Amino acid sequence: MKRVGVGLAGTGRMGRVHADNLAGRCAVAELACVYDADRERAAAVAAEYGVPAATTFAELVERSAAVAIATPTGSHAELTVTAAQAGRPVFCEKPLSLDRATSVATIEAVEAAGVPLQVGFHRRFDPDWAAAAARIVAGALGEVTYFRTSLRDMTPPDPNFLAGSGGFFVDVTVHDLDVARWLVGDVVEVTAHGAASDPAFAALGDIDTAVCVLRFANGALGVIDNSRSARYGYECSTEVVGTLATVRVEAPRPVEWRTPGQAAYPLAPDFEERYPTVYTAELDAFARCVRDGTPPLITGRDALAAFDLASAATESWRTGTTVTVKENT
Amino acid sequence: MKRVGVGLAGTGRMGRVHADNLAGRCAVAELACVYDADRERAAAVAAEYGVPAATTFAELVERSAAVAIATPTGSHAELTVTAAQAGRPVFCEKPLSLDRATSVATIEAVEAAGVPLQVGFHRRFDPDWAAAAARIVAGALGEVTYFRTSLRDMTPPDPNFLAGSGGFFVDVTVHDLDVARWLVGDVVEVTAHGAASDPAFAALGDIDTAVCVLRFANGALGVIDNSRSARYGYECSTEVVGTLATVRVEAPRPVEWRTPGQAAYPLAPDFEERYPTVYTAELDAFARCVRDGTPPLITGRDALAAFDLASAATESWRTGTTVTVKENT
Amino acid sequence: MKRVGVGLAGTGRMGRVHADNLAGRCAVAELACVYDADRERAAAVAAEYGVPAATTFAELVERSAAVAIATPTGSHAELTVTAAQAGRPVFCEKPLSLDRATSVATIEAVEAAGVPLQVGFHRRFDPDWAAAAARIVAGALGEVTYFRTSLRDMTPPDPNFLAGSGGFFVDVTVHDLDVARWLVGDVVEVTAHGAASDPAFAALGDIDTAVCVLRFANGALGVIDNSRSARYGYECSTEVVGTLATVRVEAPRPVEWRTPGQAAYPLAPDFEERYPTVYTAELDAFARCVRDGTPPLITGRDALAAFDLASAATESWRTGTTVTVKENT
Amino acid sequence: MKRVGVGLAGTGRMGRVHADNLAGRCAVAELACVYDADRERAAAVAAEYGVPAATTFAELVERSAAVAIATPTGSHAELTVTAAQAGRPVFCEKPLSLDRATSVATIEAVEAAGVPLQVGFHRRFDPDWAAAAARIVAGALGEVTYFRTSLRDMTPPDPNFLAGSGGFFVDVTVHDLDVARWLVGDVVEVTAHGAASDPAFAALGDIDTAVCVLRFANGALGVIDNSRSARYGYECSTEVVGTLATVRVEAPRPVEWRTPGQAAYPLAPDFEERYPTVYTAELDAFARCVRDGTPPLITGRDALAAFDLASAATESWRTGTTVTVKENT
Repeated sequence: MKRVGVGLAGTGRMGRVHADNLAGRCAVAELACVYDADRERAAAVAAEYGVPAATTFAELVERSAAVAIATPTGSHAELTVTAAQAGRPVFCEKPLSLDRATSVATIEAVEAAGVPLQVGFHRRFDPDWAAAAARIVAGALGEVTYFRTSLRDMTPPDPNFLAGSGGFFVDVTVHDLDVARWLVGDVVEVTAHGAASDPAFAALGDIDTAVCVLRFANGALGVIDNSRSARYGYECSTEVVGTLATVRVEAPRPVEWRTPGQAAYPLAPDFEERYPTVYTAELDAFARCVRDGTPPLITGRDALAAFDLASAATESWRTGTTVTVKENT
Repeated sequence: MKRVGVGLAGTGRMGRVHADNLAGRCAVAELACVYDADRERAAAVAAEYGVPAATTFAELVERSAAVAIATPTGSHAELTVTAAQAGRPVFCEKPLSLDRATSVATIEAVEAAGVPLQVGFHRRFDPDWAAAAARIVAGALGEVTYFRTSLRDMTPPDPNFLAGSGGFFVDVTVHDLDVARWLVGDVVEVTAHGAASDPAFAALGDIDTAVCVLRFANGALGVIDNSRSARYGYECSTEVVGTLATVRVEAPRPVEWRTPGQAAYPLAPDFEERYPTVYTAELDAFARCVRDGTPPLITGRDALAAFDLASAATESWRTGTTVTVKENT
Repeated sequence: MKRVGVGLAGTGRMGRVHADNLAGRCAVAELACVYDADRERAAAVAAEYGVPAATTFAELVERSAAVAIATPTGSHAELTVTAAQAGRPVFCEKPLSLDRATSVATIEAVEAAGVPLQVGFHRRFDPDWAAAAARIVAGALGEVTYFRTSLRDMTPPDPNFLAGSGGFFVDVTVHDLDVARWLVGDVVEVTAHGAASDPAFAALGDIDTAVCVLRFANGALGVIDNSRSARYGYECSTEVVGTLATVRVEAPRPVEWRTPGQAAYPLAPDFEERYPTVYTAELDAFARCVRDGTPPLITGRDALAAFDLASAATESWRTGTTVTVKENT
Repeated sequence: MKRVGVGLAGTGRMGRVHADNLAGRCAVAELACVYDADRERAAAVAAEYGVPAATTFAELVERSAAVAIATPTGSHAELTVTAAQAGRPVFCEKPLSLDRATSVATIEAVEAAGVPLQVGFHRRFDPDWAAAAARIVAGALGEVTYFRTSLRDMTPPDPNFLAGSGGFFVDVTVHDLDVARWLVGDVVEVTAHGAASDPAFAALGDIDTAVCVLRFANGALGVIDNSRSARYGYECSTEVVGTLATVRVEAPRPVEWRTPGQAAYPLAPDFEERYPTVYTAELDAFARCVRDGTPPLITGRDALAAFDLASAATESWRTGTTVTVKENT
């Protein structure tokens, strides 16, 4: 069976994760070509994986059946539109843009071009969350009455990265907001609270810990807690309480080490270790969409809805009030 | 060794729990006498345990070295003062009163009488929370950056009970607010949200689910979630995140049953099963205070501080705004 | 309610555990008097708990409604008979004797005296094993097809203690053999294997690790593994596989500590910590037998049956063959 | 990057698992061609995956860079030799043969042909066991003192399959014997016990439950327990106790469902669900050996050593005695 040749734009942290997966773990997608604004870096990565380097993004598009964009956020929208208008399906890391109008224009341009666009909300491809989602959709929980999720990083990122990240809620909370929409449904109210446990964040007027209270359209309450400085490791867990059942998704803990006085299991230091299969799965899912002509599981419209909730959270945090959200569409 | 004879006032649900423990499980306390406004009921319970029934509260005080009050809330304050002024140490179920001024007057009267007053915040006597608290006090967590706790009932109580309960936050959340103060410290801001998953609550203008966001004096955030209708069972769990370590307290799960396709462990239907030793422990701890002249672990002042936070949560829920709390004193 | 005054003979390690419980944790039993062959020690312990010291065992019997024997093994049988013939119910630590005939004579003498005799197989009083046993008896497992249990000490005992212990199988395995009989039923074949992971044991011709394979009367297989040197802590866990369900009993793990890279829960260093309530429960259960005239949950006959299986294990280990066991009676 | 085209012989249960993985999940291997003695079936499977069907095994070899053999056991040896002598690397399901001399001859023929041979002991490719093995090799356990592993099927296989399986120990226990050698080292003594919990097995003179006690060259003891009728699901778990630490590998349990009175997590019904990635991983690992010229992680010699231990277990079970095993070479 022929694999789908994916051209990769961007060779930073996420770009390297995708290159590794496309070259050595994906079954449906394969690495076709590499592009980076830094040509030397593109050449080095391409050589490492034995694929051609493109000197321009146009050349990458030309050489690839589909394109995966993992460049700095500022170029996401433009590259997405360029690839789509050349008829290439696009996988793009979130966010499409930090500017809402640009995101909308990008989505509309892709829709006009008639190609699929998948955005990098990886948790949708985790088998555990997917199993929970499937049973929730099938009615196993009855009516949802409460939602809770935690997303925590072990150590904060480089401040240089933070400057262009769109802020805490757009950068971190947006993943949990997508999960909230996925597992429960539309959110109509957001109330956000932030704190800086690390003085470095306070000095930048930023936060490293946040709590975001949601009210869903069905009346249920939800809580998202996030931290950039959880110290013990990377955490991602979810609980959904319903009238018939409650589901909890936690990190698996298959290996336990016992030493004098304690039993311990290892915690993932970061998202790569926490999700050993999910980044491969999202690119293979994208490649299947390309190959089979099926729609992506998570589209630009979904990403926009989560972005709008993250913007509402930012506003709530800044103003100290609850923000009402328009019907998510 | 002589045991401390405790006179029990009130033979409702909690009164029966205390009677059972005083008569058959406590090692330091013992059941001395029983009183209830319903004399027939008092006589029946007294006969069951082989102790005298008192026909008046004054007689109960007379016949007992110390008094435990588990009557309806409305009489807590008066009975507490009566017993204290007769020189009897008092254990009283929470709350002292739904009226703050009455609570303050009660506390002051007990202080004037010079006897110990312990209030029924039972979680302080659970060995798991106590172990966590001991290590937190010893600095094992470093600086606390986040606090989370869940308290959920399997099924809602009788609406007749609800009417006199003081409202959701005063009746339910107050336990978690006490734990927040105990494990982390003073709370300076409260923002509360409520929802009614069960239409019966909405009809009463009441709620059965709540989220309460706390800001602690040290800047940390906290979240309490509560439910009267969790359906799956009684839940009580706590997490405290610190700069050095994070602690989680969950229900123990020592026995697992495997049947085709699943492994299951039993969940406690209610607080008696979740805390098999804690109600015995709190009365023995009270009896030790009486015997040894040591101060109670949880006093009227602590109960008042938790009540004030619960009142702030009620106000926040009603007004939709964050409520600032005066320094807890 | 009047408590049952228990006279304690022996103030070694187990004697001190019992003294603590009788004096400060039991609800039905209470410490009446203390005896030890070392009179100074008896006097010191008695003073500590505020009870009289007996200078002879006869005096202890005289001053007590019932007797608990935790002396060195060599005197168990004689003291048991003395107390029983004086009409006192007896709680005796296991084994009654390292000599089978002496055990039988002791049991017969107690039966002739018409008093209850309870032997110190504490696991019968653990709420988790008891819950499993209750459901097994009720048929929840269907037919049992496999039994597994582990009993492991963190660190080996003093060699001086080992000399008079009756050997590994009689001292350690006997507890699991009793659990096997309790949860599954009669054992008809025993095959035992031993190893010395610690050279000190090999030097004494002894072992610190053993595996004992059982065949039950119903045809099911069972495995007991034991260690005196598990290093990580004290372990006691059980699994019973049946045609309808499988049950596992493990140590509870309610408190989890997360530090960079791992989540850990504390392990009990020894049996006192692993079983925080069980030694209190067995003495209160004994006191209830005394008070109410009910038979003990675990009698001298049960202890003899477990001893016979331990002897068969010892023989199997020495001879390298499977040993057939006569119908347990 | 070019993938390694693997020709698949056999389209029974395991053959279908491998076809699915080669066609849709492997990243390094890919399905090149399908062969089955039943030509219609081969044609149907080949059509399903869009690859050519070979009408003879020789044709399969011709069309493939490497060969995977999942035919009935009786043809394993012959097909392995044929492929190897044609210069094709071979992946073969276990066992090579139920006849030891044939296995040896096969291994020698493959060695003479100079191609790699990997045998289907899949557990070596599970990330959890591999993590444990890596740390054991690195000395994290100190000296191993005890080994325990359980392998249990939910429901017994078809009796027709059993007839040609080589018997319980060769068919089931052999996997755990390989794990024992891998994690601990050479085994010098085997004592096996069997039972038939299901009368159908007894009627065939066969067993469905077994316990196998091992003594390792370093003196440590080990226990393997196996069942064909565990009813609750497929189980595979391992514990290794060492002087410095103890490691346990259990099934992950990331998703928990809470319903009234219990919390449950799903159990895998069979090996495919228990090991979602391991069969893909073993074929990609084999393809990497082919591509890179590296030796397989688990060779014919390893398979022979495990087979010899399984034969010893069979003999021990039949004779009721401990069987000494020659140094594994």
